[in-house]
Amino acid sequence: MAKDVNPPRGMRDFLPAEKAKRESVLAVIRGVYESFGFQEIEAPALEDLNRLLSGQGGDNEKLAYRVLKRGAELDQALADGSNPDGLADLGLRFDLTVPLTRFYASNRTELPIVFKAIQIGPVWRAERPQKGRYRQFVQCDIDIIGDAGILAEVELITASLAALDALGLKDAVIRVNHRELLMTLLTGFGVKVDQLIQAMIIIDKLDKIEISGVLAELHEKLGAGIAEKAKAWFASLDSSVIPGELEELFSAVPGSRLRFDPTLVRGMGYYTGAIFEIEHPASGLSIGGGGRYDGMVGKWLGTDVPAVGISLGFERVVELVEDSAKPNGVVLVLDDDSPATIQAALTYQKELIGQGLNVRLELKPKRLNLLLENMKANGFNQFALVSVDTAKPTLKPID
Amino acid sequence: MAKDVNPPRGMRDFLPAEKAKRESVLAVIRGVYESFGFQEIEAPALEDLNRLLSGQGGDNEKLAYRVLKRGAELDQALADGSNPDGLADLGLRFDLTVPLTRFYASNRTELPIVFKAIQIGPVWRAERPQKGRYRQFVQCDIDIIGDAGILAEVELITASLAALDALGLKDAVIRVNHRELLMTLLTGFGVKVDQLIQAMIIIDKLDKIEISGVLAELHEKLGAGIAEKAKAWFASLDSSVIPGELEELFSAVPGSRLRFDPTLVRGMGYYTGAIFEIEHPASGLSIGGGGRYDGMVGKWLGTDVPAVGISLGFERVVELVEDSAKPNGVVLVLDDDSPATIQAALTYQKELIGQGLNVRLELKPKRLNLLLENMKANGFNQFALVSVDTAKPTLKPID
Repeated sequence: MAKDVNPPRGMRDFLPAEKAKRESVLAVIRGVYESFGFQEIEAPALEDLNRLLSGQGGDNEKLAYRVLKRGAELDQALADGSNPDGLADLGLRFDLTVPLTRFYASNRTELPIVFKAIQIGPVWRAERPQKGRYRQFVQCDIDIIGDAGILAEVELITASLAALDALGLKDAVIRVNHRELLMTLLTGFGVKVDQLIQAMIIIDKLDKIEISGVLAELHEKLGAGIAEKAKAWFASLDSSVIPGELEELFSAVPGSRLRFDPTLVRGMGYYTGAIFEIEHPASGLSIGGGGRYDGMVGKWLGTDVPAVGISLGFERVVELVEDSAKPNGVVLVLDDDSPATIQAALTYQKELIGQGLNVRLELKPKRLNLLLENMKANGFNQFALVSVDTAKPTLKPID
Repeated sequence: MAKDVNPPRGMRDFLPAEKAKRESVLAVIRGVYESFGFQEIEAPALEDLNRLLSGQGGDNEKLAYRVLKRGAELDQALADGSNPDGLADLGLRFDLTVPLTRFYASNRTELPIVFKAIQIGPVWRAERPQKGRYRQFVQCDIDIIGDAGILAEVELITASLAALDALGLKDAVIRVNHRELLMTLLTGFGVKVDQLIQAMIIIDKLDKIEISGVLAELHEKLGAGIAEKAKAWFASLDSSVIPGELEELFSAVPGSRLRFDPTLVRGMGYYTGAIFEIEHPASGLSIGGGGRYDGMVGKWLGTDVPAVGISLGFERVVELVEDSAKPNGVVLVLDDDSPATIQAALTYQKELIGQGLNVRLELKPKRLNLLLENMKANGFNQFALVSVDTAKPTLKPID
C-alpha cells in the first residue's frame, strides 16, 4: 500500500507544465527589472532568528518557521530545559525585505551608491492553510536603497508596471497613499501616537469588514469620539484631489495608472512615506504592494538610509497570466536499445537540438500510440522512428 | 555601532556580479537539459521529517535541519517534555533525490510513463563549515524514472556532458563503476552481506586517505584477511578492460569521455547499478555524480520502479566557469528630479530599453565622476545627461 506521499500541508508540488509557466513568468519579470538597471542579489533562505524576530517583520514574525540548533548547542539547550525559541537559532525568511536590509548593511561598501536590488525567491510562513494562501510561496521584489527622492518611487512604479505589461497584464493599476497623510488624519481624529499603528491596522481591514466593521472596531478599541470622526471622514472621501504629499509623484508618472486611495493603509508598521498596492480587474486580491521604509535599513547600521520597495505577489500574478507555451518537442522512438541504435539516435538528436528543438529519446513500447498520446500531452508534437539501419529518420506530426 | 550583519554561519550572500553569473550558468544548464526532452518540476524545500529521515538519505540525514512544529502541537510537545525531534515535524531537504521519489509517488498518474525530470534548487545541510562546503547550496539534478535499460544512463550522461560543454567545460569526463561489481568483489574478499556498505564507505575514502589508509581501516574494522585481499586487488587494478556489466554503456556513448574506475564507490547506500562521478582537470573535487537507484522510488509505492540520476554540483561548476558578462548598461543622469525631467528621462529610457539595453536613472550628484566610476564597476558602460530641455540626449562611453 502506498504511504502518504503528499507534500507538507500548505505546500505544493509543481508539475512540468505549471513549473514551465512559472519559470517563464519569472524570466519575464527578471528581464524587465534588469532592463531598468536593477541588479539581482541573493541572501540565504535562513537568517539568524533574533534578526528575523527583531520587530521589523510585523505580524509576519509570528509566522516564522523556527529551525532547530544542531549538535552540541542543541544538547546544551536541552540540558537547560529551554523554551522552544531557545532550541532554535535560525528561522526561514517570511519576506525578502528583512533579509535585504541585513544584506545591505553587510555588503554596502561593495554596492552602488544608490542600490537598485532585485530579489526573487521563496518565502515561508506558517499560515493556517486556506484557499490562495500557501506556506511556501515566491516573491519578486525590487527595492531602491539610498535615494530619498521621488525618482526612486517613479522607477519602482514604472518598472513594476512594465513587468506586468510584458506579462499581458496591461490593466494593472496602482493605488497610492502616503503614511504621513494617514498619520495627520488619525492624529486629527484624536488617536494617540502609541495607538496610530493599531488604528491603521483596523482601517486596513476595510476590504474585508467594510466601513461599518471598521467603525465598529474603532469604536470598541479606540472610543466613540474617534469612530464618530472616522465616520464623517468616510462620508466625505474624495480621491479626485491629489494631496500635496503625492502631487509630484502623480505628475512624474506618465499615463493614468496611479489611483489616489486615501483609505489605503498597508499592514506593516515600518512604512514612512508613499505606499502602494497593485491591483488588476481579473483578481479580487492585491497582486503586489510596497512603499517607502526609510527607518528600517538604518537599524543595522546606526545611520539613516532611505529605502523604498515594491513586491509582486508572484503566486497571484502567475494565476492571471495566460498559458502561452507552444509545443516544440520531438520524440525519437528507438526500435531497440542496442548501442548501435542508441548511437544513431544520439546523432540525430544532436542535429535536431541544434535546430532549436527539444528532443526526447524513447524506447519503442508495445503500444506506440499510447506513448505518442502521452508525449503529446507533455508538449511533444513530432516524432520519428529510429532503427540502426534508418538512413535519415523522418519527422511526423503527432496527431 | 553596526550590529552583526553577517549571513548565518556557512551561508552566503551573493552580490550582483556573482548572482548574474550564477543565474546565467543555471539558464545554460536548464536550457540544455530541456533540449534533451527533460522537464523541470519543483517540490517544496521542506518535507515531513519522518520522510526525510527514513534511511534513504544516508549520512546526509544526520545533517538535516529540523523545523519546529507551530502552535498548539508545539505547546503539547513541550508539556510532554519531548526531545527536540519530537518538537520538529518538518525538515529542510538535504538533497533533491529524496523529495523527487516522494514527488513521483504523489504525482505519477499525471507524469509521462518514462519521467525525465529536471530539478534545480537549494538544499541545506548542517555541515561543519569549511572551505568549499556550504550549509545552503544549489544542486542541478536530472533523473529518469521508469526506464530500466541503459538508454536512461546514456541520456543522463549525454545531457550532463552537453550542459558542461555549453559552459565551456569540454574537458569534463565521467568515471564509471557498477555497484554489482563492487558487491561481487567485496563478497570475494570475504566481506559479509551486512558489512558491504561499511566496506564501500571505507573504500570511498581513497581520495582522502589513499590506499594505505584504506587498507589500515579495512584491517582494523573488517579484519586482516580482507585487508590482505584488498591489498592484492589494489596492486593488480586494471581499468583498461571494461567489464561485462558496463560494456553496453561504454559502446553506446560515443567519444571517449567515460573512464572505467573499479575503485569508484559513491557514498550513498541506495545505488543498485551503474554509478558515476564527473570530474574536470581544473577541479580537484568531483563536480557531479549519480547512479542507478532502482529500489528507492518503489519504497513509497509498494512496487518496483527503476530510476537513475545525475546531480551536478552547481557550486563547483560555477567556480570553473569563466565570467563572460558583457557590460551593456546605460546610465541616464538626471539634472534634477522635477516631474518634467523625470518624464523626459522615462521616455528616453523606454526607447533605449526597446533597443535591448539596461538603462538606469540616476540623479546627478555633486561628483559625477564618482557616480560614473561606481556605475562602470557595476556593468554600465555608457551614460547620457538628461535635463528638461534636452532635445535628444547623447550617449557617451564611460571611460
